[in-house]
Amino acid sequence: MNRNNKGWVRTVCLTPPTLQDNTADADRLADALKSELKTNRVDIDLDLLKKLPEQLRKWAYQLQCVVLKDRDRWFLTDITDSQDSCTIAGLAVDLGTSRVVLRLLNLSNGQILNESSFHNPQVTIASDVLARIHYADIDGGLKRLNELIINSLNENITKLCRSCKLEPADIYMLSVAGNTTMSHLFMGLNPHWIIREPYIPAVNRPGIVKTEDLNILVNPSARAFIFPNSGSYFGGDLVAGILFSGLNNEEKTSILVDVGTNAEVVLGNSDWLIACAGAAGPALEGGVTRMGMMAGPGVIDRIAIEPASLQFQIHTIEDLAPQGICGSGLIDLAAHLYLSGMIEMRGKFVPSRCGNRLKEQKGVMHLVVVPASESATGSDLTISQADLDSLIRSKAAMYTILETLMHSVGSSFIDLSAFYVAGTFGSLIQPESAISIGMLPDLPLNTYRAVGNSSLGGATMALISSECLDEIDRIRDRITYLELNVNQEFMNRFSAAKFIPHTDPSRFPSVKVWG
Amino acid sequence: MNRNNKGWVRTVCLTPPTLQDNTADADRLADALKSELKTNRVDIDLDLLKKLPEQLRKWAYQLQCVVLKDRDRWFLTDITDSQDSCTIAGLAVDLGTSRVVLRLLNLSNGQILNESSFHNPQVTIASDVLARIHYADIDGGLKRLNELIINSLNENITKLCRSCKLEPADIYMLSVAGNTTMSHLFMGLNPHWIIREPYIPAVNRPGIVKTEDLNILVNPSARAFIFPNSGSYFGGDLVAGILFSGLNNEEKTSILVDVGTNAEVVLGNSDWLIACAGAAGPALEGGVTRMGMMAGPGVIDRIAIEPASLQFQIHTIEDLAPQGICGSGLIDLAAHLYLSGMIEMRGKFVPSRCGNRLKEQKGVMHLVVVPASESATGSDLTISQADLDSLIRSKAAMYTILETLMHSVGSSFIDLSAFYVAGTFGSLIQPESAISIGMLPDLPLNTYRAVGNSSLGGATMALISSECLDEIDRIRDRITYLELNVNQEFMNRFSAAKFIPHTDPSRFPSVKVWG
Repeated sequence: MNRNNKGWVRTVCLTPPTLQDNTADADRLADALKSELKTNRVDIDLDLLKKLPEQLRKWAYQLQCVVLKDRDRWFLTDITDSQDSCTIAGLAVDLGTSRVVLRLLNLSNGQILNESSFHNPQVTIASDVLARIHYADIDGGLKRLNELIINSLNENITKLCRSCKLEPADIYMLSVAGNTTMSHLFMGLNPHWIIREPYIPAVNRPGIVKTEDLNILVNPSARAFIFPNSGSYFGGDLVAGILFSGLNNEEKTSILVDVGTNAEVVLGNSDWLIACAGAAGPALEGGVTRMGMMAGPGVIDRIAIEPASLQFQIHTIEDLAPQGICGSGLIDLAAHLYLSGMIEMRGKFVPSRCGNRLKEQKGVMHLVVVPASESATGSDLTISQADLDSLIRSKAAMYTILETLMHSVGSSFIDLSAFYVAGTFGSLIQPESAISIGMLPDLPLNTYRAVGNSSLGGATMALISSECLDEIDRIRDRITYLELNVNQEFMNRFSAAKFIPHTDPSRFPSVKVWG
Repeated sequence: MNRNNKGWVRTVCLTPPTLQDNTADADRLADALKSELKTNRVDIDLDLLKKLPEQLRKWAYQLQCVVLKDRDRWFLTDITDSQDSCTIAGLAVDLGTSRVVLRLLNLSNGQILNESSFHNPQVTIASDVLARIHYADIDGGLKRLNELIINSLNENITKLCRSCKLEPADIYMLSVAGNTTMSHLFMGLNPHWIIREPYIPAVNRPGIVKTEDLNILVNPSARAFIFPNSGSYFGGDLVAGILFSGLNNEEKTSILVDVGTNAEVVLGNSDWLIACAGAAGPALEGGVTRMGMMAGPGVIDRIAIEPASLQFQIHTIEDLAPQGICGSGLIDLAAHLYLSGMIEMRGKFVPSRCGNRLKEQKGVMHLVVVPASESATGSDLTISQADLDSLIRSKAAMYTILETLMHSVGSSFIDLSAFYVAGTFGSLIQPESAISIGMLPDLPLNTYRAVGNSSLGGATMALISSECLDEIDRIRDRITYLELNVNQEFMNRFSAAKFIPHTDPSRFPSVKVWG
């Protein structure tokens, strides 16, 4: 893919000027690019114009051009010597509320050079979006939030470049996918109205912005593509996720679920896209159960219980002594507790099956998952009845959201050709466990596909192909946002889903309880 | 013209957002402008985005928008309160090699507020274009030339604004017409290759540039439209001149002549435009004759000689005592000297008719135009045989250029429906005198039309109507530049034109010598 005819780096050979062909340097270059890019116009900034005449002649009219497109508009970002082997790099940014992930790649061939991630430093102001928006309203608040993210981006970009023996100046393009508020704070736009009725962002399609105007310290002529949002609650991160999953290109209907603090769900195909979001995730992200935590070394990500012996088989990330459990581990645990008869369909402990794993602490029943003797913490790792109740509310909310979304288009789960699950959660979750507790519908297991960090994946695609930018716009324009009305119908569905797997077990024919 | 539907200031009333219509602020405004401007896209800069949400709500979604167009692309430059009566100003700049003229106007209604002019300070480096281009090559030279013009523009903009009780920040748009080299120096582009074969400018269509990037101190969000050139020798000043003359819109063929150091000539109609330039002007601009000078108070601009009495009737600008003669006065003088028999058809003094006005100084014959007793200088104002010879070469060159241009399209002078003469020279010249000496063709006098400062006129038009910007591009694209080959045919024409009015007097039937 050295000569990538959809990429952002193009090699151009100009016909040198003559008395008969005395078009100006800039116009000559623009003409060549117009034919290369099949467009009717390419813009060149004044700063680039200033160095153009000398460079063109020095390089004998043969050069590499870093180009970029903003809908129908092409820009020439910079030019380099086509004989030079320097790396022209691009940076994909997953601008998360709690974590930011960077991926550095070679724009000429799409090769990934390295990745890094860091905590969004705005967490020091507030961990949630809502509180950050309020903070932005106080004097200097917006500036502070903006500087926090920009400065740590700059620091981490420098480190990441250094790891690849590159300089930040080797980066000519950024692609940034974040939710609507994170994107606003990144651009220094006040998110004030995002959370006030009728919930209006400052901008839906930021498009291409000069990195200099954003105070991002990369190549001075670099530009950033900022993913568009589809309103206050459907951000560029999700648009990037849809792009990465590819569900927007499939004739058959698929679904994409991204579970974070919110569960964000997109249903659609190449004709239409419908999205909604709801609070479904808290139990799944760590922080709800006392032993719950983010996925990481020593964290339980998989559990199986042998129904006959009731032996627990515990797997931790990197096989270290267990110190907590992450969302996917919790779902495995609940599934196997249910399948082995240790909890019943309302999620309550069955003392006769739990035996001496059940302990009362301060009036609440706890089940010992890992005894103190085997844990990394030196204490029992337990799950309480309250933890389980919370998990069941979460799984019920997730299933209800999915059911409501399917219902809104007059479709049912059986019509889905693929079920994409994004995020770390998606990579770790065992679909059969999620099905067993009735969190996800009882579809053939090969319907479920983990897509990993789909925002970062989508942001990466924008760095590789100019056609993706058109597709991003088509995705954004096609999304219909379904406002979840918590009405009686929703509550009825939710109540039915609060059973394991459901009050209507015929929906989950594959779920068979032991004994 | 308070609501100018082609102008750059538009009043827009947005429908306030609702839960059902929650488009972002920027997209809402862009949508309204798209329908107002009949375009499919309007770009908004990050700086403007930052203030947009608050301003929109403060002004209840009703606002004035300063827009600007760069070929097919519309930008929103800035927004103001539609209830506010502040002036939104624009500045037209005629960026001359020796003189710069500014015209401040109200962008909302096209009203001219004031004008001023100043010497191009680059004259302190070198008076001619060629020497400035060479100076730009020395270390720091380009920067110096750029700073000279930018700084004095800034000074004079401030003064001009003050005279209208405005601030430079009230200027939202500039339109700049200069020759190719002046435009390059204005933008800080190196004009090095303009004078080196094959004569390539850095850019032909600079388009719209942010004034901030040019270091012009007006409104920080203002943009400058820089007139395109059609190569090294046909500058934006001439494109502006064509626009102002309107010859590009006429079905019948007309000609436009701008006499400065060079004579620049455009022939054409609504179908085609052909241009050429040649050294024709030196004798006409002052500096050639010892008494020659630029038009100004006390300068002779009109002379008549009563053939019977040989009495000189002298008119000076502002009726002051005469101190010199400008180009138009010189042509009048030559015409009347010829018509009254004081010079013959080769331009030589006829001693018998000149009488005691003829004096020998240092071996060269001089004719006293104004005796010392009547002049402002206290000395005789005289014209020498050498001055006359030089004038005749100039007039012959002009006529030959015109003839060659007409010949190149297989047309003759009689086909011209209008003959536009630009510049101060054009305003002062008496066409009948120019015809009498055979400088301009013998067309009906009402064919000749003085168009004044046509560059400034064209630059002003660009500030008033968005349609002019399209027309400017069409003009630029349609110009064919005719390289004047000084071949035998040209030399033959030139020799014939060195007679008064011409070796072929049948071309000038209206010219009748006295007696």
